[in-house]
Amino acid sequence: MNAPISLSIDLGERRYPIHIGVGLLSQPALLESVLPRGPLLVVTNATVAPLYLPRLRAAFGARSLAECVLPDGERYKTLASLGQVYDALAAARVNRDGAVLALGGGVVGDIAGLAAATWQRGVAIAQLPTTLLAQVDSSVGGKTAVNHPAGKNLIGAFHQPAVVVADLETLDTLPERELCAGLAEVIKYGLIADPVFLAWLEDSMHLLLARNREALAFAIERSCRNKARLVALDERESGPRALLNLGHTFGHAIEAAAGYGEWLHGEAVGMGTVMAVETSARLGWLNAADVARVRRIFASAGLPVAAPRIGVARARELMALDKKVQGGKVRLVLLKSLGEAVVTADYDPAALDAVLTAEVG
Amino acid sequence: MNAPISLSIDLGERRYPIHIGVGLLSQPALLESVLPRGPLLVVTNATVAPLYLPRLRAAFGARSLAECVLPDGERYKTLASLGQVYDALAAARVNRDGAVLALGGGVVGDIAGLAAATWQRGVAIAQLPTTLLAQVDSSVGGKTAVNHPAGKNLIGAFHQPAVVVADLETLDTLPERELCAGLAEVIKYGLIADPVFLAWLEDSMHLLLARNREALAFAIERSCRNKARLVALDERESGPRALLNLGHTFGHAIEAAAGYGEWLHGEAVGMGTVMAVETSARLGWLNAADVARVRRIFASAGLPVAAPRIGVARARELMALDKKVQGGKVRLVLLKSLGEAVVTADYDPAALDAVLTAEVG
Repeated sequence: MNAPISLSIDLGERRYPIHIGVGLLSQPALLESVLPRGPLLVVTNATVAPLYLPRLRAAFGARSLAECVLPDGERYKTLASLGQVYDALAAARVNRDGAVLALGGGVVGDIAGLAAATWQRGVAIAQLPTTLLAQVDSSVGGKTAVNHPAGKNLIGAFHQPAVVVADLETLDTLPERELCAGLAEVIKYGLIADPVFLAWLEDSMHLLLARNREALAFAIERSCRNKARLVALDERESGPRALLNLGHTFGHAIEAAAGYGEWLHGEAVGMGTVMAVETSARLGWLNAADVARVRRIFASAGLPVAAPRIGVARARELMALDKKVQGGKVRLVLLKSLGEAVVTADYDPAALDAVLTAEVG
Repeated sequence: MNAPISLSIDLGERRYPIHIGVGLLSQPALLESVLPRGPLLVVTNATVAPLYLPRLRAAFGARSLAECVLPDGERYKTLASLGQVYDALAAARVNRDGAVLALGGGVVGDIAGLAAATWQRGVAIAQLPTTLLAQVDSSVGGKTAVNHPAGKNLIGAFHQPAVVVADLETLDTLPERELCAGLAEVIKYGLIADPVFLAWLEDSMHLLLARNREALAFAIERSCRNKARLVALDERESGPRALLNLGHTFGHAIEAAAGYGEWLHGEAVGMGTVMAVETSARLGWLNAADVARVRRIFASAGLPVAAPRIGVARARELMALDKKVQGGKVRLVLLKSLGEAVVTADYDPAALDAVLTAEVG
């Protein structure tokens, strides 16, 4: 690997850079150039802390970093964990001239992001994603949240980070299962808007699974560019940004019904995407070959392509709490073709019924 | 009283109306014209619910209102109460096509506002303030928050309401002490930016204390116009809006040290304003006659003008957590003259020391 790749999310005044490269956690200048000068709190988890917190501390040298180490896992993405972060922010005396560093995967980034969004009505945050899923998706775009027993990400805010630093070295220690989960979100970008990338993924999946750094860097950059474009068009998700939720309405229902943490978020999104593709096919928008191709891509990424049998009624109940519900009907992200997604409530409900019965009934 | 007074907060796309008048809780059209059509949750407290919830339900007729009744009092302005509101939102199936109605004083409005700001990353809220303090200040401008043990309003968000409806009838049942507490924020507007209003208040305090409706309507309208102007200039409080915090840095320290609920927020702000005025005098910006005049106005409104002896060290510690701290120095809102406030960290710390020693030491 050579120099880091840098791109930016163009949100006017809140424009911010994304840096992707090897060894970036040892380059505090990337953070210090954009963060305020006050107290810093690192929010991380018990798995990531021993691996990467010492490196970050060493890089910052004399500048002290307070820490808040949460338990690892989606089931800790709760209001109670958020309360722990607030306590740590108070203890570290982080005011609006301080900042939060989120060091970890999507759960850490989402909790720390919501804490930063709401502490003193908003303090700066740097996202330092250490999983593939967080590097390609959750660290970018400013969505933050914790779960509520009634559903995933029901409590949250939009709060853009000051900078995103994706250090490829952190993927060396990522468990295989989590690498695969991250690939689900990567494939998603190909399906919603980037057929060229989709074809590249089919050819290159073995390189990604082998953690080839050039391939990973390309996949992360291309994913972030796709996301950056949609977020810049529509920061608050009133329009095109919702396309990024392909597979998420189904996926969130699977995650919640199975118990948070049983299915990884990326696994559930992958399975949810297969269900969205099946629904699109029942509507006559995709053909059998398209469906087979999508199932093959997810399977080649080591992802499950059979849903848990949570029952149609439970799935409907959980989907009804989705944030995209309008006027009582669940809006779905569906595919008009591979590489072209739409958000719509204008579909034949029989198609959805048939897919739920076939996949989770 | 005749027709309601209506004014608006000019925030571009998020412009919203404030209606002030008698019997407005029985006019649901004021709400229904601006709220989405989905499920509605009323957040209120155990004191206000029996007084005004039946009236609101009757006005809404067949349209059902779910309810979340919190215990009454500043000491319940916590993350735990916020969790109760989230539970009620989930149970009522409030999605982004639903809305929250905050029926109560500043505590209810702040908790419900933060819940609305963060439920599904933002749902609509109507503020229906039932205390003078909420009608002149907290319901307007989009600041929402709950307290943290380390300090007041440390957890919060900016979230503008869709509409504010101030029904003067609700002031009929307001305890005397709370009426007086609301007057502290009214006086504040005169001191920071409106010397003509300040003089009117000196002449009319007896009418306000007698709950003369014409006088109350004028005071509420004039207060809201002053607030609307500053909020429209500076929604996120990077500049002139901070003037509205006159007395709040001292006041928050008093509230926290005395135990939330011992001093009402308005009482603490009134006392804090006296301390800000004393500090301004020590800096040579005000003279002894100004200070005496300010003490006289607050006393005439039935407000305490002697602070609790919380100690200088504790006061400093609590003030250091204030959101206006920058670079280690507390920025204060001080007065250059009666009717002209400034926000500054450029003051002689000896003046602050002397005031703390004299007032709380």
